[in-house]
Amino acid sequence: MLGEIAALNGACASAIDSGRLEDWPGFFHDRCLYKITTADNHEKGYQAGLIYADSRAMLEDRIAALREANIYERQRYRYSLGMPLMAGGSDGTGTAETSCLVVRTMRDGQMMIFAAGVYLDKLHRDSAGAWRYAERIVVCDSQRFDTLLAIPL
Amino acid sequence: MLGEIAALNGACASAIDSGRLEDWPGFFHDRCLYKITTADNHEKGYQAGLIYADSRAMLEDRIAALREANIYERQRYRYSLGMPLMAGGSDGTGTAETSCLVVRTMRDGQMMIFAAGVYLDKLHRDSAGAWRYAERIVVCDSQRFDTLLAIPL
Amino acid sequence: MLGEIAALNGACASAIDSGRLEDWPGFFHDRCLYKITTADNHEKGYQAGLIYADSRAMLEDRIAALREANIYERQRYRYSLGMPLMAGGSDGTGTAETSCLVVRTMRDGQMMIFAAGVYLDKLHRDSAGAWRYAERIVVCDSQRFDTLLAIPL
Repeated sequence: MLGEIAALNGACASAIDSGRLEDWPGFFHDRCLYKITTADNHEKGYQAGLIYADSRAMLEDRIAALREANIYERQRYRYSLGMPLMAGGSDGTGTAETSCLVVRTMRDGQMMIFAAGVYLDKLHRDSAGAWRYAERIVVCDSQRFDTLLAIPL
Repeated sequence: MLGEIAALNGACASAIDSGRLEDWPGFFHDRCLYKITTADNHEKGYQAGLIYADSRAMLEDRIAALREANIYERQRYRYSLGMPLMAGGSDGTGTAETSCLVVRTMRDGQMMIFAAGVYLDKLHRDSAGAWRYAERIVVCDSQRFDTLLAIPL
Repeated sequence: MLGEIAALNGACASAIDSGRLEDWPGFFHDRCLYKITTADNHEKGYQAGLIYADSRAMLEDRIAALREANIYERQRYRYSLGMPLMAGGSDGTGTAETSCLVVRTMRDGQMMIFAAGVYLDKLHRDSAGAWRYAERIVVCDSQRFDTLLAIPL
């Protein structure tokens, strides 16, 4: 199962890195929870996220809005994911914790760390047996909110 | 075995990233060698490390000192680990070489690369069958010593 | 196969990180394609690369030139690789896509992101059964060409 979840994480990140943003919602179940929050808020137990969606349709809306705003196209992103730390899996459901860095490359060649954090995922197999995200909470180390809005994390 | 060692490395890094520093010494055997050195010194064959411990009790002391100094709490760290390059394993002992980046996020949101280097690990199973570190030599690419003292690496 | 390719990628990166540049061509087949290009050029379908080699002998020449120019020795590099996204493999050939970050540490301790991108690899087993690269296209997020010349990527 570890290899399957690592492959799912990698394919999801690759969709974003290579600009295939419309593929991203397909990694989630129709009914899902997706939230971006900060490490400070997460530790305090605050439930509200900076970005929140509870269906794949909302994720699709988010991509459409990003395309509209045209922010995404101005620079490139590159994910670096850790190995997922897993629990469960044998019954078709599981959890995974995966560290995440994102590097942004600007048009002029400048590269910087855009985001650092961890994914807290709940997963289960769909009717075809493929793993998808039922819940993805993105806990960002930074408290700067503006940077969270440019791409899916 | 590869998956087990990758999981051990990930769990160890996660303990540091999430602030559970007191869990960190538990990844080592009671009798162990832990050393932080620089790539320059390592290549020259110098045995002395910038930080050195030869028991888990010394690692526990180090954590207590960090908590006392209160340095750790001022910022957040995020590890990005490579896949371990392994040798051995079938007899309950093995070695692993694992590349490592650490990103630091400051309170104001600034992110920077805090450390880059490689773990040179010797591992063996404990009496319960779990892998633990018998030796971990942290070879840092940088020669700046001050940065090595803020968190366990 | 996933573990084998991840190990190949890691060993190749480790050869560069630890300065064993002369070992690097040995990860390729005698007849191979190695190319460094930019994401912009790759998306436009341009075939020409900034750096191009179609044999292991050309890769060996490149290393000799780097040693001659003595650029490599001035700083240290550290690779951070993602898990390979694989296709094929059962018949002794396969493809892999692997994200890649490289951090450079200068003599004064300054660390920066030197390169971000993705490897698009074609692999097949050699006569001894070991996986080697038949093709490696390095797609760099940055368009700055100068930074591509200091080390093998």
